[in-house]
Amino acid sequence: MRISGTFLDEITHDIPSNNWGRAEWAEDFRIMKSIGIDTVIMIRAGVGRTAVCPSQVLSEQADIFPVYEDLVELFLDLAEENEMAFFFGTYDSATRPSRERTLDQEVQLGKDFIDEVWQKYGHRSAFKGWYLTFELGKMEKHRVECLRQLGAHCKGLSPHLPNMISPYLHGRKLVDDPISLDQHCEDWNEILGVLAGAVDIVAFQDGQVDYDDLPDFLRANRELITKHGMQAWSNVESFDRDVPFDFPPLDWRKLWWKMQAAEQSGVEKLITFEFSHFMSPNSCWPAAKNLFNRYCDHLRKAGELD
Amino acid sequence: MRISGTFLDEITHDIPSNNWGRAEWAEDFRIMKSIGIDTVIMIRAGVGRTAVCPSQVLSEQADIFPVYEDLVELFLDLAEENEMAFFFGTYDSATRPSRERTLDQEVQLGKDFIDEVWQKYGHRSAFKGWYLTFELGKMEKHRVECLRQLGAHCKGLSPHLPNMISPYLHGRKLVDDPISLDQHCEDWNEILGVLAGAVDIVAFQDGQVDYDDLPDFLRANRELITKHGMQAWSNVESFDRDVPFDFPPLDWRKLWWKMQAAEQSGVEKLITFEFSHFMSPNSCWPAAKNLFNRYCDHLRKAGELD
Amino acid sequence: MRISGTFLDEITHDIPSNNWGRAEWAEDFRIMKSIGIDTVIMIRAGVGRTAVCPSQVLSEQADIFPVYEDLVELFLDLAEENEMAFFFGTYDSATRPSRERTLDQEVQLGKDFIDEVWQKYGHRSAFKGWYLTFELGKMEKHRVECLRQLGAHCKGLSPHLPNMISPYLHGRKLVDDPISLDQHCEDWNEILGVLAGAVDIVAFQDGQVDYDDLPDFLRANRELITKHGMQAWSNVESFDRDVPFDFPPLDWRKLWWKMQAAEQSGVEKLITFEFSHFMSPNSCWPAAKNLFNRYCDHLRKAGELD
Repeated sequence: MRISGTFLDEITHDIPSNNWGRAEWAEDFRIMKSIGIDTVIMIRAGVGRTAVCPSQVLSEQADIFPVYEDLVELFLDLAEENEMAFFFGTYDSATRPSRERTLDQEVQLGKDFIDEVWQKYGHRSAFKGWYLTFELGKMEKHRVECLRQLGAHCKGLSPHLPNMISPYLHGRKLVDDPISLDQHCEDWNEILGVLAGAVDIVAFQDGQVDYDDLPDFLRANRELITKHGMQAWSNVESFDRDVPFDFPPLDWRKLWWKMQAAEQSGVEKLITFEFSHFMSPNSCWPAAKNLFNRYCDHLRKAGELD
Repeated sequence: MRISGTFLDEITHDIPSNNWGRAEWAEDFRIMKSIGIDTVIMIRAGVGRTAVCPSQVLSEQADIFPVYEDLVELFLDLAEENEMAFFFGTYDSATRPSRERTLDQEVQLGKDFIDEVWQKYGHRSAFKGWYLTFELGKMEKHRVECLRQLGAHCKGLSPHLPNMISPYLHGRKLVDDPISLDQHCEDWNEILGVLAGAVDIVAFQDGQVDYDDLPDFLRANRELITKHGMQAWSNVESFDRDVPFDFPPLDWRKLWWKMQAAEQSGVEKLITFEFSHFMSPNSCWPAAKNLFNRYCDHLRKAGELD
Repeated sequence: MRISGTFLDEITHDIPSNNWGRAEWAEDFRIMKSIGIDTVIMIRAGVGRTAVCPSQVLSEQADIFPVYEDLVELFLDLAEENEMAFFFGTYDSATRPSRERTLDQEVQLGKDFIDEVWQKYGHRSAFKGWYLTFELGKMEKHRVECLRQLGAHCKGLSPHLPNMISPYLHGRKLVDDPISLDQHCEDWNEILGVLAGAVDIVAFQDGQVDYDDLPDFLRANRELITKHGMQAWSNVESFDRDVPFDFPPLDWRKLWWKMQAAEQSGVEKLITFEFSHFMSPNSCWPAAKNLFNRYCDHLRKAGELD
């Protein structure tokens, strides 16, 4: 099983920018395609006052900073050139305490932006799904409700397109109060129950628990997701959470363990966060080029790459 | 408006070394020149027991470690070859608690070193100013007095040369008790009043406050600096303070916002901390090469670069 | 005096992986050889559930994850091709609180693994010593006893091969309660007394104290080690402990200071932790390439490199 999807992250709060222009992105899409990536998921269209595309809604309601170029347009162009499916990541207001929005305001802003986006980009042939950008790791009623309403709104506009989420594991590598597997299952059974009909694909992140605990989480997640009538993918993170700074590319052996564990759990598809910083030969982290080479060696040995 | 000055930082406590030799520095000056940099500011000649040039004063009074090569000589050579102005950054004893100097001792050491430096390098045609290396963000009477005395001493030696400082903003991204804009203005009105006659150029750092708060700080600073008869420059930082480790090259879009804000505030010149680590195609941070390319794209679009 | 040995670190908890394959390792050994490295020390064969070679003992007793390739085999091949001595680093169970081993269990597991390793790789001509992987900085009776027993066990199997340790300095850059030089000497006099007969080479790490305190520690260490009939080497660390993230390549000037200090202390050999990440032209840290160039410049000036 190979990694056939990746997030696109050019707007984030914790990953340094590659500072790529159009030519660099075009080259990276070409390389993604060459190793079998058919799906690209833009992690978010905006966060706080930063956005990746011009938007009247975000200008008026979120007072965004000037947009240098329309990355959605660029990503759609490149996805079409490379025959990939593009998932559009929604907006996260990431409200600061002094400017908080209520749940209703957050949802309303989200919906208005989704309407604008759908009108502007919905006709593009690569526009194949929505990515609901709010992440959560355990029951948080407000976030779940937000996801449910935004997912339902997307469904209303584009009933034929899948909605995707990528939750994290509330695990030892992320938090000081890691969740037990039992509690995780209880929470996610309830969450996915609420989200049924609003979410089609669930791709749990896989980097927050120890490697020996991961198989149990993967299996439990796959079962819960299937039970609720959704598709289970795995987000095989390609950055390393085990070293003193956040984040370098992952050690190849860890990627290999996690891919095996995901395959054994029975998920339908492997995606990664994310190719361009952590697995690309063009990444600004030189170790990413080597991770790419190790990954390609592995595919070749398995006869999955020429 | 383009960035026409940069700090040179090969002696610091928080930026990893590029480990460049003469050839690498020569190439970097050539590139700086090609994009319009006409001013280089050596951030400090020494800190604690480390110095960038041999010095009898620092050997005797600060017990400095052996100096591998005379970087001042190198930087002056390269500044002259490339017709740039060189600002000499003074010495910071950065006294450890166990070996503290009094204010008088710090100032006396600073003056002795400035005398030695002026005798040794003052005749060089690229020696065009002094950079007073002590940074501060709000009223600290000792530091201000130190700056005033060192600045006055430089004026005594070289009345025709400008003295420069580059204070920081005591802002949210740096400290837990950020200063209000009003308090900032009150403090800096008093500080610049004390420094009148001892300082000619003030280039505030721009990275410690949120992007949406920056325009107000820039405007207030420009007005205060003008009021006190000094020149206002802006130190458009090219490293990123928004990510989990200190520090990668800045996202191009953030540099672009800050350059626009600086231009609108009416400053006379843009400089950066600093080109060689964070904007150079030769930097050890590969993203710096891409930031350089994005910056050049931008200059070309504006017709400011061939 | 030049650096003639290096650790090999492809299994660790705090250094991001270079993600090298066989070709990259082969090239790096060739470069090590070209600058006079004749000794390579694998820092550990395994830690926790990760191992660098297949092992029945570790599979049964430590439940290790799948091993992607046998790096011991690879390192021995390359050491033989390049006529280097290879030191085998033992296993560290790094027990998590929930799965602790007693001292006896840790030692028994270590011995069983050493037996297996000796049978499997002991005949290789490059197998020239053991590296006892447990590090300590001051008296810790359990760790010392563990080192003593493992060292004695290796001596039993291979009386002709040296055993090496590389302790750290319990210094200001590592801990909040730095040890005094006097206490350091008292502790290490006792520790080395216990280890006499079980350890042949002691290569203290040199990065945890200030550069001005280092010469005293180096001299004291050399004297203590000689007194106890062992060989004194110095582990001249090539990564930087003075910057905000852990760890970039060292500033060349700091390496130069530390090499001089080590030479003056009278140690017999300089090694480094470690070449491939921090001094190699192939490292994923571009500054390492420049550190390599500065180091080679220095050797050439001294007539020690063509």
